[in-house]
Amino acid sequence: MSPKYTDLVAGLPASVPFVGPENLERAQGARFKARLGANENGFGPSKSTIAAMSQVAAETWMYGDPENHDIKEALAKHHGVRAENIVVGEGIDGLLGYLCRMCVEPGTDIVTSDGAYPTFNFHVAGYGGTLAKVPYRDDAEDPDALMAAADRLRPRLIYFANPDNPMGSEHGPAVVAEMIARVPDGSLLILDEAYCEFSALGTVPIDVGNERVIRFRTFSKAYGMAGARVGYGIGASGLIGSFDKIRNHFAMSRVSVAGAMAALADGQNLNSVLERTARARTRLAEIAGEHGLRALPSATNFVTIDCGRDGDYARRVLAGLVGAGIFVRMPGVAPMDRCIRVSVGPDAEIDRFATEFGPALAKA
Amino acid sequence: MSPKYTDLVAGLPASVPFVGPENLERAQGARFKARLGANENGFGPSKSTIAAMSQVAAETWMYGDPENHDIKEALAKHHGVRAENIVVGEGIDGLLGYLCRMCVEPGTDIVTSDGAYPTFNFHVAGYGGTLAKVPYRDDAEDPDALMAAADRLRPRLIYFANPDNPMGSEHGPAVVAEMIARVPDGSLLILDEAYCEFSALGTVPIDVGNERVIRFRTFSKAYGMAGARVGYGIGASGLIGSFDKIRNHFAMSRVSVAGAMAALADGQNLNSVLERTARARTRLAEIAGEHGLRALPSATNFVTIDCGRDGDYARRVLAGLVGAGIFVRMPGVAPMDRCIRVSVGPDAEIDRFATEFGPALAKA
Repeated sequence: MSPKYTDLVAGLPASVPFVGPENLERAQGARFKARLGANENGFGPSKSTIAAMSQVAAETWMYGDPENHDIKEALAKHHGVRAENIVVGEGIDGLLGYLCRMCVEPGTDIVTSDGAYPTFNFHVAGYGGTLAKVPYRDDAEDPDALMAAADRLRPRLIYFANPDNPMGSEHGPAVVAEMIARVPDGSLLILDEAYCEFSALGTVPIDVGNERVIRFRTFSKAYGMAGARVGYGIGASGLIGSFDKIRNHFAMSRVSVAGAMAALADGQNLNSVLERTARARTRLAEIAGEHGLRALPSATNFVTIDCGRDGDYARRVLAGLVGAGIFVRMPGVAPMDRCIRVSVGPDAEIDRFATEFGPALAKA
Repeated sequence: MSPKYTDLVAGLPASVPFVGPENLERAQGARFKARLGANENGFGPSKSTIAAMSQVAAETWMYGDPENHDIKEALAKHHGVRAENIVVGEGIDGLLGYLCRMCVEPGTDIVTSDGAYPTFNFHVAGYGGTLAKVPYRDDAEDPDALMAAADRLRPRLIYFANPDNPMGSEHGPAVVAEMIARVPDGSLLILDEAYCEFSALGTVPIDVGNERVIRFRTFSKAYGMAGARVGYGIGASGLIGSFDKIRNHFAMSRVSVAGAMAALADGQNLNSVLERTARARTRLAEIAGEHGLRALPSATNFVTIDCGRDGDYARRVLAGLVGAGIFVRMPGVAPMDRCIRVSVGPDAEIDRFATEFGPALAKA
């Protein structure tokens, strides 16, 4: 009977939010020919980021600054807020975990969308919260349904990703502003903006005076640094300061932080990534069209392709692609699971997807 | 009244386990001349580690493998266990946090030593546990007192660092084996072996069949990678598998993991670090002797120098050193706080300490 766990942890299933592509590669005994499944940025980090990381590698004998002072100052300047409004963590995943720890306990009501980010659900379940999931509407998160559920349940947390993953849809600033205005007393709106750099409609202005919203951003997507694990939150200083009560103060890789600071300073590379992403999205939509299929509009670095039938069919298409060495993923919940989700990437990777897509459709 | 925290988190103080040297540098407006306070390895990571990190920097657009398969296989082979007996995390700090989350809740009794690793205490408090602290004995953790407290309290966790920080002392394998044999039903002994590579007496053999002990190791000390945040736990597969229920699966930096694997494979560099560490310890003991002071025997990469008077005196010595640009730390609890703790490092850093130590003593 050793060790003795908390009842909460003892009762948790051995679930994981995601199976990694490396797991699939080991099962298949072969590397993927195209890695287009995790919304990574195949255009890679900027040259300045790679240079900064390489340069700092020799300094990795030193712990990073537990206060993350310099990167917080840089981010604060970038966003026109103060350092006390920024918390830096081990990706948005890590920050979502900390926030759930701060707010979620057995019996706590939490609101999200059915089919939205699984890692948030993993953390909520991990702290014993009760998830209420509202359906998507027209392949997008449904602000009205989310806020109606919030009115009804008075949840401590409301999760809303904008632009959305896995559908690639987005809502404009006016809609988001209206959501923020409707956050009930005692609730906190999590605005997951991991993909916001790719947005066409833009983001609602940051207001760190509002304690009812926290925004999460990341270097994993537009900045091409998913493997570095650098995310951050922007919010009211009281809320942001509370992370210090519980976070792993020495969690950040010194090399990763140096790379992120270089990335933030390199607006030219960011613009180039955005241009190349837009071109790749167009190309993926064309490939879908060549097979008589529709690509959903995307405000992200991936394209969700409607395979035109049901979930079982799309799962067969996905299996065909994965079996042919093309790593892609798909939404997990109906009716969105009629789609597959293809990340953008360099031409050569998209070419390999294009080559295998037809046969996978034919086989399905 | 937004947001609404759990009662536990709302009641936590805004404490941090450690103030980083960068904070002190900002306060003083100057960089430290010698960085000898955090038991970092100033000899640096191996050339092979630096090369691996630099090489993988360009691949940082990919998430790391959430299962940490390759490094777990390498560590398992290194230790003669199976991958299912290894959990990799964001430093021992991160793993201690996860373990506390698994076992600690309000009212849970936990046993440690008074003056032992503050980050463990931070995590225990963060989950609402009740810490029982037994005193050190003869400047070392007291196995008998720890296990007597364990017999009395039946704590879920017993923390024991061997070799010890901040005193640098160690107990031999026979003593540790006896402790393990005494772990009560329902308790788990945390054997923090962060410094074990520097040990003179060696470690007790690993027995992953024993569910009453978990061992933590790190790449932060002997491998010179504190800034990379790679630690790991070794234990029974059931216990190790339970981390998967709650950990941040995508927490590890891809570059850090690549560096750690290169470090593990580079036994020659490790031996060189151990030799240079032994020489630097001897040198630090000589410097202490030149001032009529005693350096405690060290089984670590730091030397604890008994300043010969009380805590107030040692704090003045410490302040003198820090004010002169020498970053060192000291134990926080009497009677160990009559000492200062100086990490080993390259000759030039030790020279700077030697230069400033006399004046700091004179001023105190």
